[in-house]
Amino acid sequence: MFAASADNIVTGSKLLMELLGADAPARAEIAERMRAAEHAGDDATHAIFHQLNSSFITPFDREDIYSLASSLDDIMDFMEEAVDLVVLYNIEELPKGVEQQIEVLARAAELTAEAMPHLRTLDNLTEYWIEVNRLENQADQIHRKLLAHLFNGKYDAIEVLKLKQIVDVLEEAADAFEHVANTVETIAVKES
Amino acid sequence: MFAASADNIVTGSKLLMELLGADAPARAEIAERMRAAEHAGDDATHAIFHQLNSSFITPFDREDIYSLASSLDDIMDFMEEAVDLVVLYNIEELPKGVEQQIEVLARAAELTAEAMPHLRTLDNLTEYWIEVNRLENQADQIHRKLLAHLFNGKYDAIEVLKLKQIVDVLEEAADAFEHVANTVETIAVKES
Amino acid sequence: MFAASADNIVTGSKLLMELLGADAPARAEIAERMRAAEHAGDDATHAIFHQLNSSFITPFDREDIYSLASSLDDIMDFMEEAVDLVVLYNIEELPKGVEQQIEVLARAAELTAEAMPHLRTLDNLTEYWIEVNRLENQADQIHRKLLAHLFNGKYDAIEVLKLKQIVDVLEEAADAFEHVANTVETIAVKES
Repeated sequence: MFAASADNIVTGSKLLMELLGADAPARAEIAERMRAAEHAGDDATHAIFHQLNSSFITPFDREDIYSLASSLDDIMDFMEEAVDLVVLYNIEELPKGVEQQIEVLARAAELTAEAMPHLRTLDNLTEYWIEVNRLENQADQIHRKLLAHLFNGKYDAIEVLKLKQIVDVLEEAADAFEHVANTVETIAVKES
Repeated sequence: MFAASADNIVTGSKLLMELLGADAPARAEIAERMRAAEHAGDDATHAIFHQLNSSFITPFDREDIYSLASSLDDIMDFMEEAVDLVVLYNIEELPKGVEQQIEVLARAAELTAEAMPHLRTLDNLTEYWIEVNRLENQADQIHRKLLAHLFNGKYDAIEVLKLKQIVDVLEEAADAFEHVANTVETIAVKES
Repeated sequence: MFAASADNIVTGSKLLMELLGADAPARAEIAERMRAAEHAGDDATHAIFHQLNSSFITPFDREDIYSLASSLDDIMDFMEEAVDLVVLYNIEELPKGVEQQIEVLARAAELTAEAMPHLRTLDNLTEYWIEVNRLENQADQIHRKLLAHLFNGKYDAIEVLKLKQIVDVLEEAADAFEHVANTVETIAVKES
């Protein structure tokens, strides 16, 4: 079930990528597909919670499963919010750094989707969480550079407000990938 | 104790409603009563935590009780913050959508207050959490329309900043109602 | 280990204090030392989590240890972010209230560092958490006055955006000190 949730996130990150070059009608259609992916993610999360709450025995600690499912759900929500804001605010052109943010998210999504099936055996996961932590640091640096860029005097205040909300929500998505990786590490350490 | 906390939230949502038509002196007086309601809420939360921490046996899982009390406390905090910001920023007129946000919160507050006594028997709760989830979706749509409205060019940037902070905190209150409903669902599923 | 984490926070709060009077080159150097302190904090947190996850028996409830370590880590992160934003946005002069915010944080840091060694015996902690709760209320009032000051018409919108982000992150640090104090209270009540 975690694998389904993570595959869904890969779909979401690809839609973010598509968004970059899209014109207004294409954006509206991408937002539609994003909303569908987010609903699928909600259903996956709800199914995990339902099974968790109605089971006496769980493969890992309850709170770790809960945390993993919640963080995967958060990633999808943040990605959907980013797309929605771009459409809502009718952003003409995104600053160049946003592409770098989305590339990092796409890479983190792939690694996360590859890692989920390994939860069964808990092997070969060390590289995954080290790499996601590295990607989060990279995302953080891109985000701070973007903030400096937004405030360099070229944008008016209204534009800064709109764009800052978008780059902040993409940064929150990167943080949520790190939460997933940290929870996977917690599970692996407990079982070892 | 949860019922007392939820009744307090109903009081808070009625004060939000009163705020809409009030002039400056009336607003200051509403803010005063809101602060009193928030302090009463803090005392209720503290009493729940104290009893929880000093009991060996609890009716539901500890973390669910903790989560329920925290989310009820959050709702009150967000509502108090909204009133405080309106007074602090000396907002002349709130955009029309804010009234809709507050109506949704008032409806969610009523439903939550009605649901709390059912925690004893855990029956008749399904409709409550479905309806609160529906209300949160509605709040989300109102919030996004409000953001688009704030950025449509009629407001200057400083005004956008002030109003955005207020509509965001009301949206956080709506999210917190959903957390309460989700926790109630979790408790009910575990016990069934 | 909690004591090491709290001592690190005292270091951080002193760096915040130094920042106030510093010119641009001195600020860059303070940011460097802050980053080092934050990395040391990360290592301390990671060591606590690792030991927690690989131990069968823990002195207090697992979730309380986890919450304590996370909140201490959050404080450091928020303080580092504040310094980083001052450098990033090249802020010429901080509003006067920021000094008051930092003084409250420095006092809370001292009290927290003094309290941590008492976790062993759990005595003499009541005064600590009452005082930190009082400091958080004070921080809240300073923060709200700062917001009113930022919006009083003297600053342009871009400047408001930059400064608001900084005073908000310092307020988040004050909130995180309160979370630490609340967790210490929870532990003490459970053991009594």
